[in-house]
Amino acid sequence: MNADNYAQCAELAMLLELSAGPKPGNVDRCHDHPDMGFRHFLASAVSAYPVFRKAAAGEAGIGALILEAVEGWRRFGISCNTHFGEITLLVPLTMAAGREGDLRDDLLRVLEGSTVNDAIRFYEAFRLSGARVARVDQLSLADRSAEEEIRCRELSLIDLMKLSEGHDLIAREWSRGFSRSFQLSALLRERVEEFGPNDGLVLTFLEALAGHDDSLIQAKHGLDKAREVSKRAEDALCGDDPIQLARELDHAFLKEGINPGSTADIMAASLFIALRDGCFEVIL
Amino acid sequence: MNADNYAQCAELAMLLELSAGPKPGNVDRCHDHPDMGFRHFLASAVSAYPVFRKAAAGEAGIGALILEAVEGWRRFGISCNTHFGEITLLVPLTMAAGREGDLRDDLLRVLEGSTVNDAIRFYEAFRLSGARVARVDQLSLADRSAEEEIRCRELSLIDLMKLSEGHDLIAREWSRGFSRSFQLSALLRERVEEFGPNDGLVLTFLEALAGHDDSLIQAKHGLDKAREVSKRAEDALCGDDPIQLARELDHAFLKEGINPGSTADIMAASLFIALRDGCFEVIL
Repeated sequence: MNADNYAQCAELAMLLELSAGPKPGNVDRCHDHPDMGFRHFLASAVSAYPVFRKAAAGEAGIGALILEAVEGWRRFGISCNTHFGEITLLVPLTMAAGREGDLRDDLLRVLEGSTVNDAIRFYEAFRLSGARVARVDQLSLADRSAEEEIRCRELSLIDLMKLSEGHDLIAREWSRGFSRSFQLSALLRERVEEFGPNDGLVLTFLEALAGHDDSLIQAKHGLDKAREVSKRAEDALCGDDPIQLARELDHAFLKEGINPGSTADIMAASLFIALRDGCFEVIL
Repeated sequence: MNADNYAQCAELAMLLELSAGPKPGNVDRCHDHPDMGFRHFLASAVSAYPVFRKAAAGEAGIGALILEAVEGWRRFGISCNTHFGEITLLVPLTMAAGREGDLRDDLLRVLEGSTVNDAIRFYEAFRLSGARVARVDQLSLADRSAEEEIRCRELSLIDLMKLSEGHDLIAREWSRGFSRSFQLSALLRERVEEFGPNDGLVLTFLEALAGHDDSLIQAKHGLDKAREVSKRAEDALCGDDPIQLARELDHAFLKEGINPGSTADIMAASLFIALRDGCFEVIL
């Protein structure tokens, strides 16, 4: 595989994640959100392709690439946050894949090799993206003065992720070598083989949501709501017809303004891992 | 704009065309076909990206690029024809866009510059793609011995397209400098401005289908059926609620096994022209 092939895996992971449905609360093939449609996510995914190719070819640093991805979708005229979480997971994954060794080992090296400059670029990218994270007192992504502190304390991007792993799913993945994404990738293959590509993905999404509170829900509605949502996903999985229950959950979440965006991000990372392993025929 | 930007326009044109709905008879956001799903078209579009970048950068000939695109989707494990028509239109368009002059003039130069070798590669690509075209007595795309005749008579790809323009929409576009695609691109912008991105695209699709018999329908069901389908599209456009009538037509065409694939190909070319002109905010 070459840099283009890894970029294609990342691009396709984004598009397949987007298109599976019913994916409770999120934009999918069946419905848009009032402020953001399916087409915005398509365009945003397309805008990221050159970033993924550069990442796989080792042509730029991790923070600069995440920033370039956000600038890319804004140049397409998209002003809301589409893919900040997915990009934050897929850029290091694509960088690691491009090294063509053991993916887990290379990923650890990529993450641990992140610098203070990567952290500064990441904060810049966050502000440009319009993404939301839980409020914190120290080193908040939304706080411009945080950059000064990052430089003073010489904090790299992985240092910052480790500080946030308690309240953010994406930071948790960074801190733990993407252990959850690898685990869900294995589960995804099993579910897809048993239930087919779409339903397998929906069921894995439900399991991901049931297993961990979603950070975007937590940021928007608080921890109690995030826990309640995970419990409802678990209940759907325990029912007789989880896909039908996912459809009902979808209607309910849409009404309540709940979209488990961070869980979708982790699903995209899991899809990338499966596609990079050559699982095209299984996933498609 | 650079080669990546033109490739992104081509990629996004494919994805937006795919995702608009109801698009009577074709795979769209709302439904799959039994043998081919939305995800196969997503993967096929992603597989074409490097081809489009090479086309925009002027790095290979037109026939070789069309063949590379078909090989690309087959490498992803897709064994049926997904995008042969779209690729045959988008490759020369992306090549022309990469020359960064007047798109219509550059396109004519690209088409007229095609060679005997491009014709041979194109025949090879056709056979590999599993695409269907109307049966003809001479120089049939399905006929292996045609290649010998092409070499003997020194026929370039544009020569062959001119011989087929009477019975194939794609060949007609090639023969006439994509005049229909440019015309539909202008119409698309008007319709999208008036009816929004999705419905504007659906209405333009109906107008495209009403205006010309679809070659794929002709190849599968004969000319009479293709004419009847165009008439039914025209009737839908004349009704009080064309989008609702498109939905009804969609159900009917699916039942009858009618998919106007060539019209979809022309729509992707029209979308490319609009996106290349910087119409992102209109189209999205």
